[in-house]
Amino acid sequence: MNSDILWDILIVGTGPAGMGAAVNARIREKKVILLGAENGSDRLAKAPEVKNYLGFPEISGKELMDKFIGHAVGAGAVLEKGRVETIYPGDEFTVVTRDNQLYRSRAVILATGVQQARLLPGEKEFLGRGLGYCATCDGPIYRSKEVAVIGETPEAEEEVNFLAEICSKVHYFPSYKKRGLQVDPRVEVYKEKPMAVLGDKRAEGLALPDGKLPVAGVFIIREVAPAEQLISDLKLEDKSIVVDRMMETNIPGVFAAGDCTGKPYQVGKAAGEGLTAALSAVSYLDKKA
Amino acid sequence: MNSDILWDILIVGTGPAGMGAAVNARIREKKVILLGAENGSDRLAKAPEVKNYLGFPEISGKELMDKFIGHAVGAGAVLEKGRVETIYPGDEFTVVTRDNQLYRSRAVILATGVQQARLLPGEKEFLGRGLGYCATCDGPIYRSKEVAVIGETPEAEEEVNFLAEICSKVHYFPSYKKRGLQVDPRVEVYKEKPMAVLGDKRAEGLALPDGKLPVAGVFIIREVAPAEQLISDLKLEDKSIVVDRMMETNIPGVFAAGDCTGKPYQVGKAAGEGLTAALSAVSYLDKKA
Repeated sequence: MNSDILWDILIVGTGPAGMGAAVNARIREKKVILLGAENGSDRLAKAPEVKNYLGFPEISGKELMDKFIGHAVGAGAVLEKGRVETIYPGDEFTVVTRDNQLYRSRAVILATGVQQARLLPGEKEFLGRGLGYCATCDGPIYRSKEVAVIGETPEAEEEVNFLAEICSKVHYFPSYKKRGLQVDPRVEVYKEKPMAVLGDKRAEGLALPDGKLPVAGVFIIREVAPAEQLISDLKLEDKSIVVDRMMETNIPGVFAAGDCTGKPYQVGKAAGEGLTAALSAVSYLDKKA
Repeated sequence: MNSDILWDILIVGTGPAGMGAAVNARIREKKVILLGAENGSDRLAKAPEVKNYLGFPEISGKELMDKFIGHAVGAGAVLEKGRVETIYPGDEFTVVTRDNQLYRSRAVILATGVQQARLLPGEKEFLGRGLGYCATCDGPIYRSKEVAVIGETPEAEEEVNFLAEICSKVHYFPSYKKRGLQVDPRVEVYKEKPMAVLGDKRAEGLALPDGKLPVAGVFIIREVAPAEQLISDLKLEDKSIVVDRMMETNIPGVFAAGDCTGKPYQVGKAAGEGLTAALSAVSYLDKKA
């Protein structure tokens, strides 16, 4: 269990903003952990060429992302694969990942990237009432029942397979390329794209192009959890986390940087904000100490 | 005369913020000119090592500054040596440098760096009343009179020599290393550091450690003109230019980035803000067009 360690700064997200934050927090000698995708931002890594990150006139997104990771890890930041599901504030923060790992940290920097996914109609209403983001956490509620899973990342397959073990039937809607899909043969895989979550007081099914699919529970597994899901009472505006010039959010000890704080969605802006968020977090910790 | 060209974006300052702005404005195909020191930020160039500019774990300040200049100039930004003295707003901006070059631009980005110099006691009160920042502009007022010049950069020597031609006496207080000083033999060079500008309704002299030096006019020549001098009604707070998250100042068409907008005084923050300022300026121009 990771919860033995009390981190100074836990960074949610491993893109340019997270790496910018990690480098600067490490230079200030804080204990830093980055949680997110192992290889950083997939969106950046897929850019064939980045022309506007100052100092590197011609570089591929993949090379740039690798340099960023090398810089942060070389500076002593710990990078762990993990999708953060929930952050509980308190005297110290408790951070829970999808696979139920717990982390404790004195400050948190949100660098979760731009939320590209639009919420599905009904998603917000039924959240916690038949709809969840974490199969490991809520799956057992649906033992021997039918569930639907919408997966936006191959990592959803693990959850689908876990559900296949305990549910009577799993309907799977992968929205990524289906080549190489590794799901339990009992799972029914769909090509259709669900249009809405249906229900009255609770989620009762999905709206598909050719009619309703009734299920007892719905899971949506995204690459990045929506920011409003991560921590309660976090102030958002137009889906961006509201920050001041020091990258402070409305919650003391929680800072944010990069695309999750709004446009422009650019590497240089994200890296610079990560730096500022880290220095603000350091100053927050130093005042507390 | 440069004023034949109407620039899209004129950037005041050639440090990381200015270069970050220039690269991004050029990628958006705007006509971009940078005005400032030819070799960029002297402060950065003097840093033996920069460890926290994301992607370059170990690099000297000089190398980093050179890479930035190479990137901006390579992208097609025009870099001219010039110290901007005044910016006149209007349908287009008129920008005047110390050597009386005029530039016209549709938008302006201030990237003037941190104002490291503290104002001298009395400086603010007597500005425009016996105290000025531009000998070329105001020198003739003091024809055949005695003046004092406080110079923080060797470039002040040109102004000193100009004043030596027209004033009865020039007292010069260089605050930089005096080796290689090239001033007119009629100029009296001091080692003392003036402590205040003295006067009643107008500046009447300087307070020196050993008493008052009475003069008719005082000039202060800094490497960077104080931001409040550049453009009237620019909103400042604690000597920093007030900007919103899009790097807009209170004056339409004027954006700011980097150290002049406040802490942290860091390369990555400056470069990122330059990017945002450029994209905001582009969007301002596109709306106007």
